[in-house]
Amino acid sequence: MIRQLSIIGVGLIGGSLARALRDVGVCEEVVGSSRHPEHLERAVELGVIDRYDTDPARAVEGAVMVVVAVPLGSMAAVFRAMAPGLAPDAIITDVGSAKGNVVEAARDAFGRMPPRLVPGHPIAGTERSGVEASFSTLFRRRRVILTPTADTEQDALNRVRAMWEYTGAEVVEMEPAHHDEVLAATSHLPHLLAYGLVDALARMEDRVEIFRYAAGGFRDFTRIASSDPVMWHDICLANREAILDVLGRFQDDLDKLTLAIRDNDSAFIKEVFERAKAARDRFAESEDGTARSQ
Amino acid sequence: MIRQLSIIGVGLIGGSLARALRDVGVCEEVVGSSRHPEHLERAVELGVIDRYDTDPARAVEGAVMVVVAVPLGSMAAVFRAMAPGLAPDAIITDVGSAKGNVVEAARDAFGRMPPRLVPGHPIAGTERSGVEASFSTLFRRRRVILTPTADTEQDALNRVRAMWEYTGAEVVEMEPAHHDEVLAATSHLPHLLAYGLVDALARMEDRVEIFRYAAGGFRDFTRIASSDPVMWHDICLANREAILDVLGRFQDDLDKLTLAIRDNDSAFIKEVFERAKAARDRFAESEDGTARSQ
Repeated sequence: MIRQLSIIGVGLIGGSLARALRDVGVCEEVVGSSRHPEHLERAVELGVIDRYDTDPARAVEGAVMVVVAVPLGSMAAVFRAMAPGLAPDAIITDVGSAKGNVVEAARDAFGRMPPRLVPGHPIAGTERSGVEASFSTLFRRRRVILTPTADTEQDALNRVRAMWEYTGAEVVEMEPAHHDEVLAATSHLPHLLAYGLVDALARMEDRVEIFRYAAGGFRDFTRIASSDPVMWHDICLANREAILDVLGRFQDDLDKLTLAIRDNDSAFIKEVFERAKAARDRFAESEDGTARSQ
Repeated sequence: MIRQLSIIGVGLIGGSLARALRDVGVCEEVVGSSRHPEHLERAVELGVIDRYDTDPARAVEGAVMVVVAVPLGSMAAVFRAMAPGLAPDAIITDVGSAKGNVVEAARDAFGRMPPRLVPGHPIAGTERSGVEASFSTLFRRRRVILTPTADTEQDALNRVRAMWEYTGAEVVEMEPAHHDEVLAATSHLPHLLAYGLVDALARMEDRVEIFRYAAGGFRDFTRIASSDPVMWHDICLANREAILDVLGRFQDDLDKLTLAIRDNDSAFIKEVFERAKAARDRFAESEDGTARSQ
């Protein structure tokens, strides 16, 4: 049971976490905070939070668990702003899509890595944003990655793990740097490519007509380009090194594929496409397996 | 009413067209042809075709309408193989994803562009292949692009248009070269990027683990990488010039985005992402509009 949960940033993720925990009845009171009082009013109306305070320090007063669910670029400022209100034994976690950067932000804001701060990242979301888009089953059967450091207390880790398990998520642990490499490849790079492709097409002259003949494949491929631009801008800068690394590898591969098309190199093109199809089919099967086994 | 429809290549597209036309009762008899008799047997069992002949020339004998639904790389050979069986007034159309190449293949095979050949391309499909994956509503509310040349007879164009309209599709016309530019941007490039990304990740060392943490965004983004590798290999070579052009533009843009991430150029990154999101949101809205109005 969490007597008071304080959520800084009551958007899709923060709002869905509050809803999920209320659904199973493990939260006595949920307090929200945000720079936008109108969003907080809406969150109260929707029954997502009980009350709010736009001042993070006051919002975390009395909280046993604090979840910071703001864009990565605001993380350090929020840590700093809430510090004066934190109880000494309050547990802190976050939901940022890059973790090395959050550890750094915490060290900056608190002067050291707080032993009761457990960096986390739920691998869940939709292209929609805001508390209106939140729903209680968002994390069900999804993975949540926790990235404790050498300084993290086992008790804090256990409690954050338990909180996420209440939402129906499967919790795993890994090193912050490893998390950042894996997510750069499977999430950050695809978003960059989708934004980049849609922007490139939008700037072509006959743009309206181009999109007119786009089909289902294009719709699915570019869905993630409807995601929140500020959030993804923050992720690009927060996870810059890992993203540049995987982006460089991808560009080298794309150059090779381009040359193969130019040179009519049938064997090379078929090899790439066949290997990709096999990997994608295995991925789809394993996803089905995961869903069935839970 | 089409007394005899002959379909060369009874896969997802050819099979779905046969099903759609049978559903509305405009085909008296459907004859299939393919290099794989076992696929044709299955198509008969499924009620997609009435009978078949593995020899294209015999399969088109007596046909008033011939639809060639084979991969682009086989187009010229199929045109050549079926030529001896064609009635002088038979109408021919195809479903290839690139059109300049089909016009060339026809000129090669027939010695000139046949006046009753109407190159066509239904903008519909799934990542699945084969007659088992075919279904009669595949073309409903989808666009079919016909690309007649200066040699095309108006009567042939009208009849091919009417056939597609029976499936519930919206038929539009454009120049073959313009078709190839638009499709390179909205379909061929996304497929290349999806294949390229999945292959790049699959070849990274910790591949199994990488895919394990992939989420819904990745699943949608890479769905098209499960498409038929041979078909997409053929498209890449058949539409090489237009694909290389749009691929070059995309790579230039991606280089700029990479530099912006390297240089912490917040304004540039936000600008690209915001422009892309606005374009993608408009696209999604217009798609909804299209669906509602039909």
